[in-house]
Amino acid sequence: MEQLARRIKIAGGDEPADLLLRGGRVVSVHTGTIMECEVALAGGEVAALGTGYAAHATVELNGAFLAPAFIDAHIHIESSMATPREFARAVVPRGTGTVVADPHEIANVQGAAGVRWMLEAARALPLSIAIMAPSCVPATHLETAGAALSPEDIAALLAEPGVLGLAEMMNFPGVIHRDPAVLAKLVAAGARPIDGHAPGLAGRELAAYAAAGIQTDHECTTLAEAEAKLALGLRVMIREGSSARNLAALVRGVTPANARRWLLCSDDRTPADLLHEGHVDHLLRRCVEEGLDPLLALQMATLNAAEHFGLADRGAIAPGRRADLVVLEDLVSFKVRQVYRAGRLVAEGGALLEEPAASPPPASAGLNLGALSATPFAIPDRGAARVRVIVAAGDQLLTEEAIETPRREGGFLVADRARDLLKLAVVERHRGTGNVGLGFIRGFGLARGALASTVAHDSHNLIILGASDRAMEVALAAMRELGGGKLVADESGVLAALPLPVGGLMSDAPIAETAAGLERLAAAARALGCALPEPFMTLSFMALPVIPKLKLTDKGLVDVEVFAVCELTPESH
Amino acid sequence: MEQLARRIKIAGGDEPADLLLRGGRVVSVHTGTIMECEVALAGGEVAALGTGYAAHATVELNGAFLAPAFIDAHIHIESSMATPREFARAVVPRGTGTVVADPHEIANVQGAAGVRWMLEAARALPLSIAIMAPSCVPATHLETAGAALSPEDIAALLAEPGVLGLAEMMNFPGVIHRDPAVLAKLVAAGARPIDGHAPGLAGRELAAYAAAGIQTDHECTTLAEAEAKLALGLRVMIREGSSARNLAALVRGVTPANARRWLLCSDDRTPADLLHEGHVDHLLRRCVEEGLDPLLALQMATLNAAEHFGLADRGAIAPGRRADLVVLEDLVSFKVRQVYRAGRLVAEGGALLEEPAASPPPASAGLNLGALSATPFAIPDRGAARVRVIVAAGDQLLTEEAIETPRREGGFLVADRARDLLKLAVVERHRGTGNVGLGFIRGFGLARGALASTVAHDSHNLIILGASDRAMEVALAAMRELGGGKLVADESGVLAALPLPVGGLMSDAPIAETAAGLERLAAAARALGCALPEPFMTLSFMALPVIPKLKLTDKGLVDVEVFAVCELTPESH
Repeated sequence: MEQLARRIKIAGGDEPADLLLRGGRVVSVHTGTIMECEVALAGGEVAALGTGYAAHATVELNGAFLAPAFIDAHIHIESSMATPREFARAVVPRGTGTVVADPHEIANVQGAAGVRWMLEAARALPLSIAIMAPSCVPATHLETAGAALSPEDIAALLAEPGVLGLAEMMNFPGVIHRDPAVLAKLVAAGARPIDGHAPGLAGRELAAYAAAGIQTDHECTTLAEAEAKLALGLRVMIREGSSARNLAALVRGVTPANARRWLLCSDDRTPADLLHEGHVDHLLRRCVEEGLDPLLALQMATLNAAEHFGLADRGAIAPGRRADLVVLEDLVSFKVRQVYRAGRLVAEGGALLEEPAASPPPASAGLNLGALSATPFAIPDRGAARVRVIVAAGDQLLTEEAIETPRREGGFLVADRARDLLKLAVVERHRGTGNVGLGFIRGFGLARGALASTVAHDSHNLIILGASDRAMEVALAAMRELGGGKLVADESGVLAALPLPVGGLMSDAPIAETAAGLERLAAAARALGCALPEPFMTLSFMALPVIPKLKLTDKGLVDVEVFAVCELTPESH
Repeated sequence: MEQLARRIKIAGGDEPADLLLRGGRVVSVHTGTIMECEVALAGGEVAALGTGYAAHATVELNGAFLAPAFIDAHIHIESSMATPREFARAVVPRGTGTVVADPHEIANVQGAAGVRWMLEAARALPLSIAIMAPSCVPATHLETAGAALSPEDIAALLAEPGVLGLAEMMNFPGVIHRDPAVLAKLVAAGARPIDGHAPGLAGRELAAYAAAGIQTDHECTTLAEAEAKLALGLRVMIREGSSARNLAALVRGVTPANARRWLLCSDDRTPADLLHEGHVDHLLRRCVEEGLDPLLALQMATLNAAEHFGLADRGAIAPGRRADLVVLEDLVSFKVRQVYRAGRLVAEGGALLEEPAASPPPASAGLNLGALSATPFAIPDRGAARVRVIVAAGDQLLTEEAIETPRREGGFLVADRARDLLKLAVVERHRGTGNVGLGFIRGFGLARGALASTVAHDSHNLIILGASDRAMEVALAAMRELGGGKLVADESGVLAALPLPVGGLMSDAPIAETAAGLERLAAAARALGCALPEPFMTLSFMALPVIPKLKLTDKGLVDVEVFAVCELTPESH
């Protein structure tokens, strides 16, 4: 009531504004126009747009553009390996005011406690992190995740302040075939936002998915796919992330008549891409590069997301809305000069002005490996003539299956570096079950040593790839010591390591340090002979049993096409 | 859950649709396009848009247009003198699926009980009547209304299902000057929709009003005014009612870039206009006549209103939304063939197919006049040389003030028919206070007899205009018998009468009968010499003390410009 009265007073000219932004070209995402006017603030809110206001403090914008702070409609912060604090440090100076985050990764590790940790860690940051309740934890029954989120857990999360709705429903087969547990999650979401994930879905399957009340999709790769989804009433998020980049294909479909139905999202951003390309500012640049009207692009990155998610207090520069504002040099480079958060200048010239509060302690330890045998990676030779081999292909999430004659040594099946047949292991790390899935993999080209990571979608068990059992054992021991993260080792010890102490996924180090650490890891892997451009990213998808064809989880090899665990030897299948 | 599963099943083609609308040109308000596809229904909801669906029943649309049922963003149903039931009978066959109603009139008569009666009367109709809690009851302290709605009353109403938000905040001076009771009502509305009413407001006053969190305005009369409001983040409702008609002036401002910020509303519709012109269909016709793209017009009349009011279950033809649909011959005449309500055909060829349920009994009697003297309209002659006279001007709400020498007769001031100085009385009818405001009026031209009405904005006291005290006394007695409504009498008795038994405002008779009754009243008034085109409409505004210049309430003459009761004799002022 007090703030309401002050806002009215300031707007009416009966009291000076707390801050006046003068001389700017104000982007009206409501009308798709540029307004030359002042913006008068009352505390953390916009009081008025007009001219001739008095103020306690005035900032001259000298013709710069003033836009609403940007909204990323869908992101997994964990992909940046940054805690919310360090993520904010990276993206706020680039103009991001709000991200809608699906903490799917930490939820797979720590369950609802991990989601609550994200909520807690997001408090008091100069960035709004709105949380969507992860819909698919665990992702499958073919792996051991750290937790499960039941419909009841989801209902409890949805009742927490800061949780907006149900995050991307990846289990589209479950939706289409009306799996009761999946439907119960949709029902729990009620009238709240429900995000979708329907890569390539079309025809009757897409119709069934849309009929379930799913409201968005960010997996479109072609314009025809996007248009089919728009026609069914879905909002389409144009995704341009570090892995999947769909903007060029989709942005031509944005028209003034349908623009309100499009949003922008990054989905997954690596630390290096955040550092070097940026965040939503990068998406906006890309839109305009591809020929889109910058005002439509800005609508997508602000008002449209605010409207979809019911964030009525932001997404536009208008009286009563929160003063989350960004000062831009132009609408081509989208270079950010200043960022205001609730009326306070929080970033300038690419950096935060104040140190954000420390992150809370992690909800649980990064590793719970339990008791493992002394030779956990040994595969006894039971006489099988041939074995299945995962064939990784660079930056693809997809793998192929090869059938090869294994190399034998002392009664065991071992890696064969000459034929690039390395050994892959997935060690369950959440519950101490002692589960170790073992298999062979081709494509990494390691001549010696091992790579290990606790980032391994979606269950994020400990994945270790090695040119010898011994190197893998060294990596395992080193990871126990690291407590979660990524490392490269050889038989003599650790060559490079990046600790990710929060759930084995995130670090509270500045994102530039994380990026440098990742670069050191990649260099170490290259030095061992690995030819992949992003060995740890490729590695992180080798345990993802929802993307064909052959993957490995702690339960063993998974034939994704039949969605079942399979034997190492194809004969026994 | 059951319905969700059926919707998915039908959309996926695993079960026949309950109803299939085939061969139509489906209006996508999401994308601003026409789609040639089938619409498959699951019970009351749309399951899918596609082709080749099987169904238990199929309707061939033969190229007709299929649009979402229309939404009137703001109306006072009482202006149509129809109960919700009879209002629905009039507007549903014209394609209206939802109206957002401000029951301001019945609230002034019966308070929260009147609003609850509207909610109750709206149940089980083939029309959604979403209620906004009236914000300004009573409208002023210069009159005795039937009730007052405090911020607490409003909070209680807002908690009722079917109440969406706070209705038009007419008290803009109260907002701008931060009247605590007014702000308390805004605070009570919280994040819900808050409609505005800011005729002609500009500059700092408009800024202050917008800063209060008011979200819409439907009082714009010029495009410049509308654009100023859009720039401040207000949504603008283009109003084309029976009194105020602003569509031609505003519709040129609708562009593809800003169209989402415009809505359509009728505000007030007379029975005759509903019958002969129509409702939202008329607004759509008018938009297209004025050159607007019909798809933008339809967006305004459907999706835009649904989004503003948070009615996520309607406003578009899309999976999961309620199947409120209208079959149109074309997008020029907007002639309605059929109307579906939650998947059921409810109107065809201009008429409802089923008799709607009876209205509940009124919340209270229409009249509580209390004890009045035998000569309640007598004005003793205290020797004043001159008196103030209200000068009515046809269809204007505005009046002027004249100063005249009164006619004297037997110690009293009486009407002077030769100079068109008639007598006007406002008799308090809600609380039995016995209050009678008396004055003189010019402009009606009655040679004899009297007009009486319980429709008199905003307090709806009993207003009686007469050429003689005696005729007014006859009218008063007749009104007691009628129990509320409108009538024309002369000294010998009633000449025409229209009962409005619900609060003295509404009738449960078909709207055609009400229109005919109004026509009989107008004819009777004309026969008495009245020259005004709509004598009862003009009469109903003579007690409205917020529109200049001189008005009459039960408390006496009101000088609107100083917003105070004034004496009949200008000398004593």
